[in-house]
Amino acid sequence: MELSNFTYDELEIGQSASITKEITLSDIQGFAAISGDINPAHLDSEYAAKTMFKEVIAHGMLNGAYISAVLGTKLPGLGTIYLSQELSFMKPVKIGTVLEVVLTVKEKLPKNRVVIECNCFNQDEELVCTGTAKVLAPAQKLSATSKVPEFTLKI
Amino acid sequence: MELSNFTYDELEIGQSASITKEITLSDIQGFAAISGDINPAHLDSEYAAKTMFKEVIAHGMLNGAYISAVLGTKLPGLGTIYLSQELSFMKPVKIGTVLEVVLTVKEKLPKNRVVIECNCFNQDEELVCTGTAKVLAPAQKLSATSKVPEFTLKI
Repeated sequence: MELSNFTYDELEIGQSASITKEITLSDIQGFAAISGDINPAHLDSEYAAKTMFKEVIAHGMLNGAYISAVLGTKLPGLGTIYLSQELSFMKPVKIGTVLEVVLTVKEKLPKNRVVIECNCFNQDEELVCTGTAKVLAPAQKLSATSKVPEFTLKI
Repeated sequence: MELSNFTYDELEIGQSASITKEITLSDIQGFAAISGDINPAHLDSEYAAKTMFKEVIAHGMLNGAYISAVLGTKLPGLGTIYLSQELSFMKPVKIGTVLEVVLTVKEKLPKNRVVIECNCFNQDEELVCTGTAKVLAPAQKLSATSKVPEFTLKI
């Protein structure tokens, strides 16, 4: 994939970027494998049936992982330094949820700092996760190619 | 792995739990694969050599993933509902960093809400990531078994 960026000077208040992703059991199992968060609420449908959500749900922090992807690949993209993140988990993300992760430039601060509003919606346009990121935006225009590492999961 | 929990009533201010993990390139590649954050600062050593950190670094949100793991498997553990998270990324986490993720109960709020301080240190005891989580702590004692899904990267 070709990657580029928006420099601090190019970024405009209200500018946005997003990704859309249908959440699968593999996404959740993969996050469990990488994070080590093997709470059965995310992995075991029999256990999950007895919880308040009645079925397996994604880790809240998976929303954070996708926010990282938009910051690192789209807005601002290459050269972004991640400074901080606030996240509120509003609703569960279930298998089959079509998640839209929308980032919008909210404020430009001195010294190339930018505040970015982060909202994750489900297919019913309900807000499932919301928060703000603060980043150090790139000063220079950059371009590079990169690709998603391939993996296999065994349960 | 046998998992259990601490109920809201059992949790005490100052109580803590931690995990320690040496960060490998596979951990970073795995997070890139799951999140889709394929910024080459995390994946491409040649590209990374030209960045301010001079080498490949972990995604900041990988700290968040490990915090999720401590919350979901240790403190409070089973039955925890993740409400919100603040994170500040203080220093880069590099390959070979021995990361210690320490969570400490900071405040018990009404209605089973608990504020948990989250600190990630490197092997030089430098704070690389800090923040606070808010969770809904479990009301009931729970136990379950769970295991880490096998995750194999094809690079």
